[in-house]
Amino acid sequence: MGPHPAVADVRRAVREALAGLDGGSTVLAACSGGADSLALAAALGFVAPRAGLRAGLVTVDHQLQEGSDVRARRVAELAGELGLESGEVLTVTVGTAGGPEAAAREARYRALGEAAERAGAAAVLLGHTRDDQAETVLLGLARGSGPRSLAGMAPRSGLYRRPLLDLPRRVTVAACAALGLTPWDDPHNDDPRYTRVRVRSRVLPVLEKELGPGVAEALARTAGLARDDADALDEWADTVYHDCALSDISGRLTLSVEALERVPAAVRRRVLRRAAIAAGAPSGALSATHVHAVERLVTSWRGQKAVDLPGRVSAVRRYGTLILAISPIP
Amino acid sequence: MGPHPAVADVRRAVREALAGLDGGSTVLAACSGGADSLALAAALGFVAPRAGLRAGLVTVDHQLQEGSDVRARRVAELAGELGLESGEVLTVTVGTAGGPEAAAREARYRALGEAAERAGAAAVLLGHTRDDQAETVLLGLARGSGPRSLAGMAPRSGLYRRPLLDLPRRVTVAACAALGLTPWDDPHNDDPRYTRVRVRSRVLPVLEKELGPGVAEALARTAGLARDDADALDEWADTVYHDCALSDISGRLTLSVEALERVPAAVRRRVLRRAAIAAGAPSGALSATHVHAVERLVTSWRGQKAVDLPGRVSAVRRYGTLILAISPIP
Repeated sequence: MGPHPAVADVRRAVREALAGLDGGSTVLAACSGGADSLALAAALGFVAPRAGLRAGLVTVDHQLQEGSDVRARRVAELAGELGLESGEVLTVTVGTAGGPEAAAREARYRALGEAAERAGAAAVLLGHTRDDQAETVLLGLARGSGPRSLAGMAPRSGLYRRPLLDLPRRVTVAACAALGLTPWDDPHNDDPRYTRVRVRSRVLPVLEKELGPGVAEALARTAGLARDDADALDEWADTVYHDCALSDISGRLTLSVEALERVPAAVRRRVLRRAAIAAGAPSGALSATHVHAVERLVTSWRGQKAVDLPGRVSAVRRYGTLILAISPIP
Repeated sequence: MGPHPAVADVRRAVREALAGLDGGSTVLAACSGGADSLALAAALGFVAPRAGLRAGLVTVDHQLQEGSDVRARRVAELAGELGLESGEVLTVTVGTAGGPEAAAREARYRALGEAAERAGAAAVLLGHTRDDQAETVLLGLARGSGPRSLAGMAPRSGLYRRPLLDLPRRVTVAACAALGLTPWDDPHNDDPRYTRVRVRSRVLPVLEKELGPGVAEALARTAGLARDDADALDEWADTVYHDCALSDISGRLTLSVEALERVPAAVRRRVLRRAAIAAGAPSGALSATHVHAVERLVTSWRGQKAVDLPGRVSAVRRYGTLILAISPIP
């Protein structure tokens, strides 16, 4: 008798995500003890030895809840039972910058990156599912910051791989049940103060009810398509930027207006955004409105004065050239 | 005393949408009698004569509701009061192809196009607002058919212009009230059998409640950005297609695999979609899965056999060339 279909699905997804790694490489599974990452770690414990890979588990103690250290130790101790060679607790201190969710994420990824370096790991697997992806797309949509934010999470990004991004959460829950594993339910996952929790518990169910089942799948599919589109446009913008931008020794950046006029708006705005950042504008503070104002120096020229950007960067147009630099531009 | 701010907003939007038309041109406003298109028609009646343009109103009688002819006549008779030179009822017979909403839309646009031709009109104005755009984006999202469907409705498309696409519906309601106009509430707009009605009355309110006000605005902004992105990628795909596709006298289409390998996935899929349609596949029946199967002939070549596409089109790879044609390909 083969494994339960849900267990087989998770293992297949992990096997595919590991393709291309050299034999003997080390892979880590990041595991919170929740159903998604528990199913992931169990699948890695099964697949890795058969694929000639070494595998370990890491779990992050965010120190935000009473008893989180005990729980983290218990998750780390599961490693052996799951067929993994090691289990390590990464204890982090969460700051406050950017809000609680962003600060926890920042601390978590830093710890994971350091653990991977210590272990010489070739990849770190994350347990995000198709449902997480759908939530991410809806959050991006609500920000209205455009296709790049609709692209959601990448299946691969540097060290990180997300094997479960095409699987619904119910498969990981079923896999844990079939393997006799008891996932830990993080109380934060039900706390409606978090926007993501409200998206999961209140928004997606209404979308499924009114628009038909399959909305989460459609959102995840949109993410994949949006990612490919954004990658292609970034590549185009890269080429244009390298062809038309010149920076001098003082950090002044110049771009040919004519080259910017020739390309479609979506490419032009990406080039201008890049140029503004290269000239010193902090990317987090640079809005679509800023970029649009610089674009008007190209597309609606009627002798405007300098456009002020964050980080004291200014953009001016002079004799068919756009100049971006820390102001004042002499 | 100037006009009510809502009236001023609608007039400004209409004025901007008319920019670039030659003096003496005729413009039609499509008016159902609802608040959006009533405010639109009233604004056109005010703006057109001051901009040296001729303007008329057209209203479509879909013959789907008892008394629709009487109501349509009443809307057409408003023309004079709104400052428009003419009011015409366009009576259509709605078919069944593609479902009731699609069939009504099809009949309506055909009638509007014919009316514009009879009147020698340079533009037809449509009353879609930012809220309509947000609904369209959510409907596209639920289909999961990717960024192009997130692009929503175009501000301009051929003869048609949508001046109110950046204005919320409440502005048109306020404008009608300020002008003493009583909009007609189409009972279809409250019929929950229509997906769009459920999006308006049940989905968007939950999104606004859980994710914060401004969701409709964010969705509309996403539409604009997605449209620009899709336009840019279509342009890129056009260039690649014209560079690498050859069609012979028998309708066989050949593409260079090497050229297709060089471009990003988002561009490659657009080129392949175009090629499949040029070879005879009906665009409505051609899914992302079909295109993806053809793409694997390029990116994951291991001697696959022909890929079958709708319309009896097949795709095969032979000696570094992709061939698409009505099957069997000899």
